[in-house]
Amino acid sequence: MTEHPESSPRVRRTSTTLADGRELIYFDDSEPYLSGAKSRDAVDERPLDDLPAAGTMRLDALTGDWVSIADHRQNRTFLPPAGECPLCPTGGGTMPSEIPAHEYDVVVFENRFPSFASGSTSASGSTSASGSTTASGSTTAGTSAAGASENPLLAHAPALGRCEVVCFTSDHSASFSSLSPTRARTVVDVWADRTRELSALDAVEHVFPFENRGEEIGVTLHHPHGQIYAYPFIPARTASLLRAATAHHRRTGRLLGADLLAAELDAGSRIVIKGTHWTAYVPYAAAWPLEVHLVPNRDVPDLVALDSAERDELAGVYLDLLHRLDRYYEGPDGSPIALPYIAGWHQAPVHQGRDVSRLHLQVMSVLRAPGRLKYLAGSESGVGAWINDVAPEAVAARLRQVGRVADAL
Amino acid sequence: MTEHPESSPRVRRTSTTLADGRELIYFDDSEPYLSGAKSRDAVDERPLDDLPAAGTMRLDALTGDWVSIADHRQNRTFLPPAGECPLCPTGGGTMPSEIPAHEYDVVVFENRFPSFASGSTSASGSTSASGSTTASGSTTAGTSAAGASENPLLAHAPALGRCEVVCFTSDHSASFSSLSPTRARTVVDVWADRTRELSALDAVEHVFPFENRGEEIGVTLHHPHGQIYAYPFIPARTASLLRAATAHHRRTGRLLGADLLAAELDAGSRIVIKGTHWTAYVPYAAAWPLEVHLVPNRDVPDLVALDSAERDELAGVYLDLLHRLDRYYEGPDGSPIALPYIAGWHQAPVHQGRDVSRLHLQVMSVLRAPGRLKYLAGSESGVGAWINDVAPEAVAARLRQVGRVADAL
Repeated sequence: MTEHPESSPRVRRTSTTLADGRELIYFDDSEPYLSGAKSRDAVDERPLDDLPAAGTMRLDALTGDWVSIADHRQNRTFLPPAGECPLCPTGGGTMPSEIPAHEYDVVVFENRFPSFASGSTSASGSTSASGSTTASGSTTAGTSAAGASENPLLAHAPALGRCEVVCFTSDHSASFSSLSPTRARTVVDVWADRTRELSALDAVEHVFPFENRGEEIGVTLHHPHGQIYAYPFIPARTASLLRAATAHHRRTGRLLGADLLAAELDAGSRIVIKGTHWTAYVPYAAAWPLEVHLVPNRDVPDLVALDSAERDELAGVYLDLLHRLDRYYEGPDGSPIALPYIAGWHQAPVHQGRDVSRLHLQVMSVLRAPGRLKYLAGSESGVGAWINDVAPEAVAARLRQVGRVADAL
Repeated sequence: MTEHPESSPRVRRTSTTLADGRELIYFDDSEPYLSGAKSRDAVDERPLDDLPAAGTMRLDALTGDWVSIADHRQNRTFLPPAGECPLCPTGGGTMPSEIPAHEYDVVVFENRFPSFASGSTSASGSTSASGSTTASGSTTAGTSAAGASENPLLAHAPALGRCEVVCFTSDHSASFSSLSPTRARTVVDVWADRTRELSALDAVEHVFPFENRGEEIGVTLHHPHGQIYAYPFIPARTASLLRAATAHHRRTGRLLGADLLAAELDAGSRIVIKGTHWTAYVPYAAAWPLEVHLVPNRDVPDLVALDSAERDELAGVYLDLLHRLDRYYEGPDGSPIALPYIAGWHQAPVHQGRDVSRLHLQVMSVLRAPGRLKYLAGSESGVGAWINDVAPEAVAARLRQVGRVADAL
């Protein structure tokens, strides 16, 4: 177990291995360190197949973007009955879950159906996609893992990297928003721990911790959990963020994210939460009908760089934001509607643009009204032109309002 | 009425005006030219509000992309009862529809709830977003319509341009795939006619004809119809296509689209339909679980440039492709499942990159198995990294198979 200065010393970290060789890490934040203490006895005895090998990714020559072709994922677990939840501790249900321990606080493990994996040989294989998508959008042609006879327009490479699952709690019916501040603080440490470790893997160029919540955006397991994708390339939207940040820095010598935060604070009308270390606002040009950015007030490239005070406040501010989001819409009887959302941490890429990138959390929802979804149809999916039917200032006003209601309770 | 050399002379084009000033154009392809002949008598007498003015678009400084903020669209017509379909001819239902005529073949009109419009003043207003998103991804800062006191990171501009609706048939329960070859040929002419006219509007930088089909991707009106968006900027994905095509042309002196078609023909495993003038294939790096590109065999920048023989074959080949797509999945009883899809025509932008761009139709579906949708969740929506669970070669094999079954009938 390794301790890091910014991690809360109360968190005990225990790494173990599943039956197929995948890594599983317990993060225990409460005495008597239930899962960590017992994990040496809790052995995964399932007859699992071999460790999933890296799949393939292909280069879309039309755009220069890599696409992971992961046809082994097609049969992944899909809304299992509650008693067979693979993310619950083993012992409660009729069959062993992914987590051998009988109890846990937070646990992280390698995805059994990964889009990116270290492969059966080595994560530092000779074929690397590094730099294929650069901040200037240019594409390196010579990335094909195939022989010289194949067409360079049909390039491919092993989908190296890693996909992890983060279970926020052993309580199947909880949600991130129902976590205690202590537990949310543990998850912050876990995100930072995983970002640091995954960034150190040879093939990895970008680390993206995110949570998909709600059947409306395709969540197949209801147990509260997030994911972390460690990509062997800089993904298209990340490259777009990097291009804009690089151009702004070249022009002004300043960080785009910092200048945008200053502009939003100056405008005021889209601010939702103003903290000592964090600010939440609805972005000026929000693409989603409900979108909030949560940004540190200090220039920070990634979660690893957050200090202890920033992590403490983040836990509270993020819970506050999630509570507001879950009160944003009301059903016909006035009861709040649990919001389906995607929440993703945009961090500086591992090896590029670290001096111009600024950490921010993007939370967005496809729910544009109770029972009405935003669909990414022709304009968005075809040409990438977004139409937002909701004014960002109205979203911010509503999010401030539902916060005040809660304060008054 | 204007005739164009490539248009079928059998199509009669009649332009008229709706009660609020929006343009409506009948394209009659069958004697006795029902709607066209009667359109002078069929006057829209609804008490409509004024012509919708252009909304606003805002520049997302984080990515350099324009977002249309169209909050007037939030209350647009949503799955009306069949008797109140606004796309049926007037006379069948209980209230006047958007189309005053009692019958029509193909009709085009300006969207009543447009994301882009010509505005109350002039489409050639002094503030233009032209060139804001260029092939190199750079962003012009001075596009704000606001005074000098506003922050350049919070830039906005009028959402100039035009949004049109294309009704493929007056038959409410039909679909594009059930159109006759003659009617499909008329629609091809209509797409070309609209591309030519919309490209000539002052503010317009890109014209995108598309069809959203199926409730699974959010279609709010079941009457068979498509749309055409004329944008006052080059949308993000179009800019990405243009960047890659420009880089390829600079490197090789050749068209990326032509070289990709040659590579696909050479590989063979993803070809679906091979025509004299058109080829349909599943792209090597397909991002969607079901995706097909339909491309002309000749280098053509846009629909306007298609000659008569190409238009004739396109009608047949596209119907063939849609028939295959509607047989791709089968229900438990073996009956075919009408495929939800997005179909969009990627054309050369109006003023940029016309010498490197090549026309292609992209058809994609969110249905990854019967009853199972692909969701654009964390990886796709957050960072733009696509995970495809289905091998493109398997998709192509299935599309070839369902074609053979039909041939045998």
